[in-house]
Amino acid sequence: MSATRFSKLTQYMQDQQFTAMAVNAGPTLTYLTGLHFHLMERPVVMVFSLDHEPTIILPELELAKVDHLHFPARVYAYTENPAIWTATFGDALKGLGLSGQKVGVEPRQLRLLEYEYLRSACGDAQLVDGSAIFSALRAKKDAEEISCMRQAVKIAEDALTATLTRVAIGTTEKEIAGELFLQLISHGSDISLPFSPIVAAGPNGANPHSQPSDRPLVAGDLLIVDWGASYGSYVSDLTRTFAVGEIDPLAEKIHKTVQQANAAGRAAGRPGVPCAEVDLATRRVIDEAGFGRNFTHRTGHGIGMECHEDPYIRGDNQQLLEVGMAYTVEPGIYLAGINGVRIEDDVVVTAGGAESLSTMNREIRVIG
Amino acid sequence: MSATRFSKLTQYMQDQQFTAMAVNAGPTLTYLTGLHFHLMERPVVMVFSLDHEPTIILPELELAKVDHLHFPARVYAYTENPAIWTATFGDALKGLGLSGQKVGVEPRQLRLLEYEYLRSACGDAQLVDGSAIFSALRAKKDAEEISCMRQAVKIAEDALTATLTRVAIGTTEKEIAGELFLQLISHGSDISLPFSPIVAAGPNGANPHSQPSDRPLVAGDLLIVDWGASYGSYVSDLTRTFAVGEIDPLAEKIHKTVQQANAAGRAAGRPGVPCAEVDLATRRVIDEAGFGRNFTHRTGHGIGMECHEDPYIRGDNQQLLEVGMAYTVEPGIYLAGINGVRIEDDVVVTAGGAESLSTMNREIRVIG
Repeated sequence: MSATRFSKLTQYMQDQQFTAMAVNAGPTLTYLTGLHFHLMERPVVMVFSLDHEPTIILPELELAKVDHLHFPARVYAYTENPAIWTATFGDALKGLGLSGQKVGVEPRQLRLLEYEYLRSACGDAQLVDGSAIFSALRAKKDAEEISCMRQAVKIAEDALTATLTRVAIGTTEKEIAGELFLQLISHGSDISLPFSPIVAAGPNGANPHSQPSDRPLVAGDLLIVDWGASYGSYVSDLTRTFAVGEIDPLAEKIHKTVQQANAAGRAAGRPGVPCAEVDLATRRVIDEAGFGRNFTHRTGHGIGMECHEDPYIRGDNQQLLEVGMAYTVEPGIYLAGINGVRIEDDVVVTAGGAESLSTMNREIRVIG
Repeated sequence: MSATRFSKLTQYMQDQQFTAMAVNAGPTLTYLTGLHFHLMERPVVMVFSLDHEPTIILPELELAKVDHLHFPARVYAYTENPAIWTATFGDALKGLGLSGQKVGVEPRQLRLLEYEYLRSACGDAQLVDGSAIFSALRAKKDAEEISCMRQAVKIAEDALTATLTRVAIGTTEKEIAGELFLQLISHGSDISLPFSPIVAAGPNGANPHSQPSDRPLVAGDLLIVDWGASYGSYVSDLTRTFAVGEIDPLAEKIHKTVQQANAAGRAAGRPGVPCAEVDLATRRVIDEAGFGRNFTHRTGHGIGMECHEDPYIRGDNQQLLEVGMAYTVEPGIYLAGINGVRIEDDVVVTAGGAESLSTMNREIRVIG
């Protein structure tokens, strides 16, 4: 695995004239090396260079993690006293020939903590945004990655199905979220979920990032459940909207509209199409139904090791889709003070189009 | 709550000549405002200034979160297109009079992402490390915070007690971790645990950061369980070590030694004592028993909203303990290839000494 990823990384670095890439604890480091570290007060950074073996700086008490790397690496461990960490970074990076060179970093992942150590150790190297390279590597999923994502989707779908058997009028959002959480773990999700499930009924559904409350389900509510699982370092992120008892015609109409928008979005993806076109596909359906102003967010985001990553499915994003790219299609309509609908699937671009990894029924389903 | 915290923040800023403090999504923002945001691709930053109302920059779709703030604030929301975010930061910060002034940031929390937006918006202000101010605010817990921590400890203790009834020779580390996780949630932990439980038996226990494996418990193992719960934004972090069936005299001896070291560490804390002295108290016991080289980490870390925060209980830390400071006491002995022992409690400094919030039996207990 790493060998292919390393050689692609090297190719991108050569193309874009980076001498080295510095990666701190997080998904890119896991992607490249299989190593898992948390963002803690003790910085962990690995420097991938064109001319030298990868160099890792880490706390002494994490040394066991690099005992069995499947590639050669230069290892620099520091002790507990932060006063010596600058020196350790200096020792590790001197000799890499970084002076005056371009060193790529990830602004969304790198903290000022690691940045300052790198800056002091890199001399007059330029630390510049190398996100495009990491994104190019990680955005196109291989078969093994897609298999993990498929499993993360299956776990999520099975967990929600099990949860719904316990939902009735009067059940609170928090109770549903708690049950769903237990079902996700019982069905095999890794214990670090990609995000806390959103369970938002009635007016709470009008806030796309609502947090589960003590509000009980009431007949006539629309109920949004936005949830996901983790499996093998990959995640899923799905949304379905349910009817609690009988709902009014407006609620039915916005659900139908979002369902059509979701279908249009899923159908729009294929190699060579700009992300913007997928966004346009969902937005057009909602605009034409007269709810354009109530679709307040982008159509989706890339998904993989992170719940949000490249490519972003926005109207201003002209990036072209390629085989293996994975993203969410999640149009929504939000009626302030009343209710909301969102339907979200995870799709992967294939040679002939885009496949939805999630297949759970998208029709309005009555519960309670 | 916020009023007191704001006025303390203002006092510290005046003392240390900071004109403003910029805080991104994370525990300090929650501490000061009650707001919860995740670290995402969309930056969220709040700027606390001496002369103006707090200013928050956030994505439009998170606006509902600031609808009901219990303090006045200037709110600047940006839309989905990152091309305009620099301008939003610029609008928000112009007029705060930051030119040439000192603006505090948190290097352990602030990413290069937010740092670059701030730098472009702050003109020639100096963005400098303001961690000491945030630490001074957050390190001394008030009664409400301690009450949450006490509950996080109780949830953790009850969850482990329930888990142990299902542990026997042959149970794997992963099975124990999975059961413990479910019990933590069932007993009322928030669903974002402070960390994934460490369950490490036999030789795996010699690695302080071991991850649960498929190894089944074998008679003669020492079993380390390092786990915690979250409650009301506060966390617990505990460790106990168990005997699986009959253990050999060396295993008994290192357990006894660590238990004595833990007791010495818990007894050493009181107002005015340097952190180093608590570290020395545990280390002395282990040194005298001849295992000094096998105690490879610091004695503990501060604990509160974060699992690791100030004050750190290290031999080089001369910071003086004050009433309300909370930290772990977690000495350990690690015998490479054989086994390990760690016993960890969460203590709070009181007027007369230090109280352990955790009281679960620390004697060696035979399971299986």
